[in-house]
Amino acid sequence: MNIIRTVADLKKEVRYFQLDNQSIGFVPTMGFLHEGHLTLAREARKENDVVIMSIFVNPLQFGPNEDFERYPRDEERDMALAKEAGVDILFLPSVEEMYPDEPSVTLTVHKRTNALCGLSRVGHFDGVATVVMKLFHLTEADRAYFGKKDAQQLAVIHGLVDSLNVPIEIVGVDTVREPDGLAKSSRNVYLLPEEREKAPAIYKALQLVAASIEAGETNTGHLKQQARSMLEEQTGAEVDYVEILSYPELTAVDSISGTIIAAAAVKYKNARLIDNVILPMKGSTLCFAQ
Amino acid sequence: MNIIRTVADLKKEVRYFQLDNQSIGFVPTMGFLHEGHLTLAREARKENDVVIMSIFVNPLQFGPNEDFERYPRDEERDMALAKEAGVDILFLPSVEEMYPDEPSVTLTVHKRTNALCGLSRVGHFDGVATVVMKLFHLTEADRAYFGKKDAQQLAVIHGLVDSLNVPIEIVGVDTVREPDGLAKSSRNVYLLPEEREKAPAIYKALQLVAASIEAGETNTGHLKQQARSMLEEQTGAEVDYVEILSYPELTAVDSISGTIIAAAAVKYKNARLIDNVILPMKGSTLCFAQ
Repeated sequence: MNIIRTVADLKKEVRYFQLDNQSIGFVPTMGFLHEGHLTLAREARKENDVVIMSIFVNPLQFGPNEDFERYPRDEERDMALAKEAGVDILFLPSVEEMYPDEPSVTLTVHKRTNALCGLSRVGHFDGVATVVMKLFHLTEADRAYFGKKDAQQLAVIHGLVDSLNVPIEIVGVDTVREPDGLAKSSRNVYLLPEEREKAPAIYKALQLVAASIEAGETNTGHLKQQARSMLEEQTGAEVDYVEILSYPELTAVDSISGTIIAAAAVKYKNARLIDNVILPMKGSTLCFAQ
Repeated sequence: MNIIRTVADLKKEVRYFQLDNQSIGFVPTMGFLHEGHLTLAREARKENDVVIMSIFVNPLQFGPNEDFERYPRDEERDMALAKEAGVDILFLPSVEEMYPDEPSVTLTVHKRTNALCGLSRVGHFDGVATVVMKLFHLTEADRAYFGKKDAQQLAVIHGLVDSLNVPIEIVGVDTVREPDGLAKSSRNVYLLPEEREKAPAIYKALQLVAASIEAGETNTGHLKQQARSMLEEQTGAEVDYVEILSYPELTAVDSISGTIIAAAAVKYKNARLIDNVILPMKGSTLCFAQ
């Protein structure tokens, strides 16, 4: 595995791959890698000649009161994990390397942000879109891999690619789960033992929504109420939100039609957990995307 | 010359060129081609295997009170001229093809816009940057050609490429002039005979700035006053602005150092004309970029 820290060195490598007509798979991360990231890398490994992973904690996507400085970093461990997952090039730029000057042009996201986690993180997705655009240009990747766990981010990236005609294929990868169904997350370690025991109920509540839709329920108000009751009774956490929205548009729907996302966020003592299921209707058959 | 009207067809052609490792030169225009555009195409012809020209009047860069609907169009004549200039692919998309939906992500330009023509065209350069980004992605060009006549646009495009790490080379092409020095422009036909006779004084006033700098004058206030006097006395037009700014930053400078732009805009009865000279200092020798 080749470790690259400068834009100039990365461009040199990419130029070489292109002249050689090698396909490039790209996995953008903020580091502190866990099973979710490694699954993205392994998917990229299967489908491309070359796998590039970036680790960059992007200051542009953190608000003034958010945890940019405190965001966990462990470069040595990340390097070992990335290598094991089959990454060919690990791109580890400094903030100065990515933003030598205050950028004169940035991206602005107009849709898909006024919902879910976007409501409480103003400007967050503008920062995500800008750094992702830069990284797409630097890697000139054929495919980029994003987890469905952060379904809103995935929706924004699809919007970016469509709106700006970016020549890249976006691959959404299923959420990796513990055997009991809890979505894997770096934050799971913050759960108290009794919280951890109850946390699988988040996914169970979302599965209940899926089962009710399959049984014929179409009223999103009823479905949300059903999920909220289960979350309140069984997770032992404070319910932050339960939403059922069109996907990827993330707009409110009164009744189920087309592809929808059922998403929930709950607050435990030291961690806020999110999870979702995306439910595409294919013809008259309901398919579970995850 | 291949005429292409859809995004899908253009992508198909570009994919073929890339697999064949052919270099692509790109000339974006709004059509109604004149000698300036054709010079860009001929420069692209010299330096690339394939030349793509786009003709697209981009609604996003026109303000509500500007002339999007009235902007001159002549597709038949443009096709003949583009072919003659050596264009291989003429991309002529409809507005629906470029913007099938309201874009969910656009570009925002933060610098280089609060000067010259940008002052009176709020949002104009956001629209330019967004459509140029789309066209760069669609053509996957190695080089793109822009006239130095619109020096502010060129500065914004350089900022876009630097800020977003776009893998493309921007080539600025010298302004094409009439034998008497007047910059070529579609708008020159609107000049009355007596206005046309005096209009070369615009370029003469900018050359006077260059000569004064070469002679040792460094005070931009003096230089601007000198140019303004000449414009007022000799062009027979109303002076809109005379500016001497750093280039490509387009910020005010009190005294001459580094690369600067001297730019002027004057208003005749039926046309507003702009012109500029960019003066790079190379070592102790003053070089005239145009």
